[in-house]
Amino acid sequence: MNVTTEYLWFNTKQRQEFIRITDDVAKIVAKSGVREGMVLVSAMHITAAVYVNDWENGLIHDFQVWLEKLAPSGLDYRHHQTGEDNADAHLKRTLMGHQVMLPITAGQLDLGPWEQVFYAEFDGQRKKRVVVKVMGE
Amino acid sequence: MNVTTEYLWFNTKQRQEFIRITDDVAKIVAKSGVREGMVLVSAMHITAAVYVNDWENGLIHDFQVWLEKLAPSGLDYRHHQTGEDNADAHLKRTLMGHQVMLPITAGQLDLGPWEQVFYAEFDGQRKKRVVVKVMGE
Amino acid sequence: MNVTTEYLWFNTKQRQEFIRITDDVAKIVAKSGVREGMVLVSAMHITAAVYVNDWENGLIHDFQVWLEKLAPSGLDYRHHQTGEDNADAHLKRTLMGHQVMLPITAGQLDLGPWEQVFYAEFDGQRKKRVVVKVMGE
Repeated sequence: MNVTTEYLWFNTKQRQEFIRITDDVAKIVAKSGVREGMVLVSAMHITAAVYVNDWENGLIHDFQVWLEKLAPSGLDYRHHQTGEDNADAHLKRTLMGHQVMLPITAGQLDLGPWEQVFYAEFDGQRKKRVVVKVMGE
Repeated sequence: MNVTTEYLWFNTKQRQEFIRITDDVAKIVAKSGVREGMVLVSAMHITAAVYVNDWENGLIHDFQVWLEKLAPSGLDYRHHQTGEDNADAHLKRTLMGHQVMLPITAGQLDLGPWEQVFYAEFDGQRKKRVVVKVMGE
Repeated sequence: MNVTTEYLWFNTKQRQEFIRITDDVAKIVAKSGVREGMVLVSAMHITAAVYVNDWENGLIHDFQVWLEKLAPSGLDYRHHQTGEDNADAHLKRTLMGHQVMLPITAGQLDLGPWEQVFYAEFDGQRKKRVVVKVMGE
């Protein structure tokens, strides 16, 4: 059994940024040597998401507008009594999901034709990590 | 270590359709021979979901009404500038989640009394796949 | 390969209750002896969630207000024609997610600085279970 762990680091210029990481994950899988198994890709910070969807800038814009509608910034959240101002980022990341498990088949990520993995940052401009854990044989 | 991969194919008659797949997954698990482990069930297309919830038609109707309220079709989504008309399907699938991991204990899916696995199609009427990957021993 | 399964039981006093379970999961991981692998933590009842986010009571309050707004109780849900009154609990648990997979590295839960695991009950006051399944070596 082969278990390999690596971390991806992010430090976004914008507070909110969506970054495609499919190739980064694929490289870690290739390096691990795992032919059959799974890889967990999980945000280690609680105002960021990891999700699978389309690599199309219009749709990414739609996601951002939609998240702002369902989980608005600037409300009088109780979390902000601690001095924080990012309660909406916690809610947005919950809507998108914070982790995915990708199948590995014949040494490759076993993804559908349009599946792409994204890191979604909702409170960036500081260093944050994603854990990538490969398990298989 | 035993890793078994199979695919379920769908081609729904309706654009939106919810299909119970618990028994299909259970059959793949039984065939794999895995006694202790986990099975990943993951939609390979980005306008479909896989989720666990109740097998009750009223609730499925409630889910559909609710998804249409939170992620309406027919809005002027930017994604539609590409010629697509399914941005809402991408959002709906995000709300429902696109994958689940089910525990396998003593050779069986280890589910609670009401847990049922569903495939939720939001842009159907064409061939789509779900990957079912069993890992264990 | 080491596969260990345990169950956490809950019987909340309130209908809705959020309970931190990070330490319970960590104890099961320690007991399993797994040094490298993953642990699945998954609600076995369909009106409860398992999620990772902040251990801060203000934010937990914000989550509860937000869930009530996006998935209100007291509506005329079709599910209630069966005699049930908990359709909103099914929707709320869907928004929060019902399971997480946690990486285990060097014998420990490999979590970011603020990651905490929670059980979120939306229709409690009765016995319910969470399955904790460790897999690794």
